[in-house]
Amino acid sequence: MAKLLLNADMGESFGAWTMGQDEAVMPFVDLANVACGFHAADPDTMRRTVRLASTHGVKVGAHPAYPDLVGFGRRSLACTPAEVENLMLYQLGALSAICRAEGTQLHYVKPHGALYNDMMKNEATLAAIMGALAAFEPGLPLMLMATANPEPAQALADRHGITLWFEAFADRAYDSAGFLVPRNQFGAVHHAPEVILEQARRIATGEPLTTINGSPLTLTAHTLCVHGDNPESIAAVAAIRRMLDDPA
Amino acid sequence: MAKLLLNADMGESFGAWTMGQDEAVMPFVDLANVACGFHAADPDTMRRTVRLASTHGVKVGAHPAYPDLVGFGRRSLACTPAEVENLMLYQLGALSAICRAEGTQLHYVKPHGALYNDMMKNEATLAAIMGALAAFEPGLPLMLMATANPEPAQALADRHGITLWFEAFADRAYDSAGFLVPRNQFGAVHHAPEVILEQARRIATGEPLTTINGSPLTLTAHTLCVHGDNPESIAAVAAIRRMLDDPA
Amino acid sequence: MAKLLLNADMGESFGAWTMGQDEAVMPFVDLANVACGFHAADPDTMRRTVRLASTHGVKVGAHPAYPDLVGFGRRSLACTPAEVENLMLYQLGALSAICRAEGTQLHYVKPHGALYNDMMKNEATLAAIMGALAAFEPGLPLMLMATANPEPAQALADRHGITLWFEAFADRAYDSAGFLVPRNQFGAVHHAPEVILEQARRIATGEPLTTINGSPLTLTAHTLCVHGDNPESIAAVAAIRRMLDDPA
Amino acid sequence: MAKLLLNADMGESFGAWTMGQDEAVMPFVDLANVACGFHAADPDTMRRTVRLASTHGVKVGAHPAYPDLVGFGRRSLACTPAEVENLMLYQLGALSAICRAEGTQLHYVKPHGALYNDMMKNEATLAAIMGALAAFEPGLPLMLMATANPEPAQALADRHGITLWFEAFADRAYDSAGFLVPRNQFGAVHHAPEVILEQARRIATGEPLTTINGSPLTLTAHTLCVHGDNPESIAAVAAIRRMLDDPA
Repeated sequence: MAKLLLNADMGESFGAWTMGQDEAVMPFVDLANVACGFHAADPDTMRRTVRLASTHGVKVGAHPAYPDLVGFGRRSLACTPAEVENLMLYQLGALSAICRAEGTQLHYVKPHGALYNDMMKNEATLAAIMGALAAFEPGLPLMLMATANPEPAQALADRHGITLWFEAFADRAYDSAGFLVPRNQFGAVHHAPEVILEQARRIATGEPLTTINGSPLTLTAHTLCVHGDNPESIAAVAAIRRMLDDPA
Repeated sequence: MAKLLLNADMGESFGAWTMGQDEAVMPFVDLANVACGFHAADPDTMRRTVRLASTHGVKVGAHPAYPDLVGFGRRSLACTPAEVENLMLYQLGALSAICRAEGTQLHYVKPHGALYNDMMKNEATLAAIMGALAAFEPGLPLMLMATANPEPAQALADRHGITLWFEAFADRAYDSAGFLVPRNQFGAVHHAPEVILEQARRIATGEPLTTINGSPLTLTAHTLCVHGDNPESIAAVAAIRRMLDDPA
Repeated sequence: MAKLLLNADMGESFGAWTMGQDEAVMPFVDLANVACGFHAADPDTMRRTVRLASTHGVKVGAHPAYPDLVGFGRRSLACTPAEVENLMLYQLGALSAICRAEGTQLHYVKPHGALYNDMMKNEATLAAIMGALAAFEPGLPLMLMATANPEPAQALADRHGITLWFEAFADRAYDSAGFLVPRNQFGAVHHAPEVILEQARRIATGEPLTTINGSPLTLTAHTLCVHGDNPESIAAVAAIRRMLDDPA
Repeated sequence: MAKLLLNADMGESFGAWTMGQDEAVMPFVDLANVACGFHAADPDTMRRTVRLASTHGVKVGAHPAYPDLVGFGRRSLACTPAEVENLMLYQLGALSAICRAEGTQLHYVKPHGALYNDMMKNEATLAAIMGALAAFEPGLPLMLMATANPEPAQALADRHGITLWFEAFADRAYDSAGFLVPRNQFGAVHHAPEVILEQARRIATGEPLTTINGSPLTLTAHTLCVHGDNPESIAAVAAIRRMLDDPA
């Protein structure tokens, strides 16, 4: 069960503005999705974040985004596949250089926000992202959402020679089709610690979780996405960490 | 004499805006200083430019700058040395990834505009730039201005383990202290082809050139900076190229 | 017939980059759509452009856009209506201040690129744009595309107390539903001067023009959109100007 | 004594990032220096901030800056006077439009950060800023630092027809020449509430305050700059407000 890795978005401060409690959550995670300057972070923030991750033995992943600081990368931008491929390369390279300066390296890639959502909905976007990875370093795994039907993404990844890491969520409700319940719907986000822990446990062990409709859903996930925004979410991460480390 | 390399700024278009005649000048140069997105260029422009350079067997160098698109990187920005080091790393990495996607690699680094000028005037800035190179890839040469007194820069480079490439200008007048005559002074820029060619020849052969005051000045230069802005300057580059290839 | 006004996009240079031949086309138009810094232009470019318009007695309109310099405002960005309203206000105000410094004022508003397209397709976007005008200065006309069915836009404008100025194109083919034929289709753009002039004449006189399918289409237009990108388009503008001034 | 107005920087959040506790401090101040999008704020933040100020009857001033979000406008940028004038106009207009949409208007202008510092040191910068005000709306007062020698700034203001508002600080030590003691020096910032209150009282009544060297210093100030960054500074603002409202 310890194989389920915890990933969290990190380095989302920007210049004089702080976001997230990276120092508090870093000790509990395995994978840090580090912003690359397009939706958040600047070169100084990136370096500080990579150093913090290295100190804790946390692997650094790139968290590239559409170029939209004011919208925090959450607004879809109608880019061509070539534009997506090139903005991916740019951000992967930038973070990679900062990793090298800190004596470490990029381990994986997880697109951010609207780019992540577009990748899950639009095969041309997903293919462009895979094209960037294949051109930059084919060995870098791509993290994407675990769904009830991972085959199409897997087939595309196979064609590009890319490894996929599927991620699931312990604090979000799923519907019976295997998608996250949209945040604006009742019951979309779990708050009760025991519910979050139980969902995490089931994802870690491969047992089916319970969807918002009560039906069972089995997700194959390599990693669990956790959040370091506030004390409550950090407490949840710490509890999940303890459970994964000592499942007895 | 063929050892004097020709370098030119390239990839300084941005989005829908075009600058420079990269396709016309690329066949005549050895080294392309490619903008990295902070003063000019975007990921698509960078990729197109690296591909063009590769097609012509031209080596790609990074041309990083202060973050100032509207000012084209020509306005000094009061950055700390740590900020300079990190913005260098970011840009070097971004261009490096795009080189990798095009099957080539970075060969050297030449800071742009105000960052270049600040590096020549301010040892802390120069040290920060060298620190970035040492952290990213110590084997990357740093291109800077050939002056009458290269020793301080050389000593600093030796401490950082960095190779220096000194560049000179064939179309600019020098003063007797070995500095470029400021552009706003009479006689600062050579326009006559025979003057430009003769200055290029002297730099290539190590003969002293004639300063604006008539005194001799010997510069040790590895490369000559040329320009592809307009047909006149491209004609000059072509003529210098022919002279260097066939000095007889 | 002289009542048909000619409008053109102006001030689309940015920093060191030049776009368009504003000085060449300004003498022939009535209305200058001036970029406001989000897709093109910077404060210096805006001031220079407003001054040029004033010199020629050309009325200045705001040409606001999504915040996307690298994409030249041509990529749709998924903004909320409140975001659209506020980014409109910001740009209207910025250009308005520059007009005031040049002793003139804003006369109308024409959204740019993807924002213009989204406004034509999405009523919430159109309402947000009208809300911005109503809040800033209800007397400012909004320029939008003349279509075969202007009633819905007119009804919305009536609710906001906004005047509409419909624009048509002399160099673009229309389909029988009254929409522009997409640029990637054969015959979408007219190049023959006599075709362009004839379409301009019909729009000016209210005679039906001929669609790409050969059917007649009557458009009610207050203004004709012309282009100052290159010598060919400027020659077309000059010819249209002469015809409108002297229709005999 | 109630005539001494309290001013504070407001609206310095940016997109998803929050800075300052505007809601907590707004009830205690007279003047809100609202960021204009170049060092902080975006159109939505500006609108929200202007609305908050209006709700509390607080006058809105523009807080324009160099274009440097990542550096929060704290890094000097080598702009020409014309560039300064135009970037001032752009920002004044943008905020002015948002004020109009909220049924209020701009009341004064206080440059931010490095632009403020450069204005205090460099007469060409100060003249460019005054030129922008004179061109936009000559009645808008310009806020600047109260010093022991306000005559040069006053003379320049008289030539531009600009009203000056001098501001002083209750929580910063002054040197005997009337300048703020740099923050990196011991004793530069007052923390003891009684020291802050006493310095505020003296500035309000025109009594000389005590410099870091023990000498008396009389400053003529129209307004006191206060801060809403944290609970401690907000408590200080509240206490100063009470003292000014009820000096007995």
